[in-house]
Amino acid sequence: MREKVAVCEVGPRDGLQMAHEIMPTALKTRWIAAIAQAGVGEIEVGSFVPPKLVPQMADTEAIVKAALQQPGLRVMALVPNLRGAQAAYAAGAHGVGVPVSVSEGHSRSNTRKGTMEQVAEVRRIVEWVREQDRPMAIEPGCATAFGCAIDGVIPLEKVIETAVALAEAGVDAVALADTVGYGNPAQVRKMVRAVRAEIGDKLTKLHLHDTMGLGLANALAGLEEGIRSFDSALAGLGGCPFAPGASGNIVTEDLVFMLESMGFDTGIDLQRLIAARELLHEGVPAEPMYGQVPKAGIPKTYRARAPVHA
Amino acid sequence: MREKVAVCEVGPRDGLQMAHEIMPTALKTRWIAAIAQAGVGEIEVGSFVPPKLVPQMADTEAIVKAALQQPGLRVMALVPNLRGAQAAYAAGAHGVGVPVSVSEGHSRSNTRKGTMEQVAEVRRIVEWVREQDRPMAIEPGCATAFGCAIDGVIPLEKVIETAVALAEAGVDAVALADTVGYGNPAQVRKMVRAVRAEIGDKLTKLHLHDTMGLGLANALAGLEEGIRSFDSALAGLGGCPFAPGASGNIVTEDLVFMLESMGFDTGIDLQRLIAARELLHEGVPAEPMYGQVPKAGIPKTYRARAPVHA
Repeated sequence: MREKVAVCEVGPRDGLQMAHEIMPTALKTRWIAAIAQAGVGEIEVGSFVPPKLVPQMADTEAIVKAALQQPGLRVMALVPNLRGAQAAYAAGAHGVGVPVSVSEGHSRSNTRKGTMEQVAEVRRIVEWVREQDRPMAIEPGCATAFGCAIDGVIPLEKVIETAVALAEAGVDAVALADTVGYGNPAQVRKMVRAVRAEIGDKLTKLHLHDTMGLGLANALAGLEEGIRSFDSALAGLGGCPFAPGASGNIVTEDLVFMLESMGFDTGIDLQRLIAARELLHEGVPAEPMYGQVPKAGIPKTYRARAPVHA
Repeated sequence: MREKVAVCEVGPRDGLQMAHEIMPTALKTRWIAAIAQAGVGEIEVGSFVPPKLVPQMADTEAIVKAALQQPGLRVMALVPNLRGAQAAYAAGAHGVGVPVSVSEGHSRSNTRKGTMEQVAEVRRIVEWVREQDRPMAIEPGCATAFGCAIDGVIPLEKVIETAVALAEAGVDAVALADTVGYGNPAQVRKMVRAVRAEIGDKLTKLHLHDTMGLGLANALAGLEEGIRSFDSALAGLGGCPFAPGASGNIVTEDLVFMLESMGFDTGIDLQRLIAARELLHEGVPAEPMYGQVPKAGIPKTYRARAPVHA
């Protein structure tokens, strides 16, 4: 039995929100279906934010409803506030992510609230969701935990403080997010240990960007600290509109290659995953497509065993 | 005191040998000088191979002599055989790398000898060099140790066997080379442990390629296993003429960023290192330049300390 690692595809949200073109709803739906059918078990399909601010996400309600048709898929949406969470609930999302920037500067740019004000918003979401008939998971991420393009170095104590406040607000899970990709593997190990010491298994996931090329090394550090859930984006699409210089998320294809090569079970068919790039390219043809494995091709050694030595 | 990690720049050899253009000698010399002056302590400046086979390396003698003018620089050259080693010695190189492919198929393509025949050639080099007046380090690499585009999966026992035979031949150091970039971090850890168990500190270095995007993750795994020396190429230049599909070496700029961010001391000024890309681009303008740090820019958090928490 291989140990399972969950890969959550965030391209339809974190990726497309930064794209210059708007991907048509029907194509987005087909793209998400292709990713789900490649075996990805969880997809952040969009965000419930004002369409005036992020027009790429205007169809999130329709996208959530369509994604719910994929058998076994965990359908996630990003919401900045209670209003967004209510919309996600109404659409039927299984869970919501909520960005909570540890950096005050990024927090104010991103949500117009300070860090602890945004934690209070998360608490309101928890209270409201717990009163509803149906459960919906609330899984905020500590954004800019590893450094910020606006505020620079983020003290570890501030990350711990934020994660603890979120856990105390009653959320289901907390992620640590390297929103701008400034993190390094030593920092990942240290932060995961420190946060887990305070909130235990409520810390579930890392959200990493590849801005400095360290994305997979950072994922490896997290993996070795026991993290078993990672956000990533097909073709490394993505960024953050309020973090200048931030490039894309870690590449799902390369992440899956790494995890499977190391003997973990992602449940994902890499060949089918790579094929899903075509629909993405059709939808946003001007966007650069990253990923080394799709470029080089899956090598014949992938998941093969060594021959018996003569 | 920060712990030191050695970065050996192999772009002038492993990079330029694959370039479509031939970099003029004077420019190559200036480029190597710029890398040395950025603080890189060791550069593989070329290879002593037949100019008919690799015309890009025809000026290696002149390049070695010019590189020797850089104060404190360890000047390395790659040699496939005794004749090459004699030429490297005559030019004044401080040390030579010798490729010894663990894969029989790759070994025959690359050197027209099987693995153990090439080990015998290394033994001849050791015997000849030890008879000379001046020392010259002999540091072969176990090529294709992590998998081969021709032979596929390489059994770990064959890597150990090759490394042990090289150590017994009396070499100064042995490197493990992921020539085609098929390796993964779990494999790196396992192989470093297994080889070190047999040859101890003779195992010094990893030579990694980023074919599948796992280059820095693999470097991290090696680092955590105690490896303190890495080959890399500025702008990720490089590949292997006999390994179809192999893309470039790990990117020196990103490697240095990772190591320094983690608190290691490479002795390298990242800003000056990035500036050396200009000369490379001038020399081989058609070659793609990789590297995330040069693209994103060095972030303000680089080697900065966290502010005192209010």
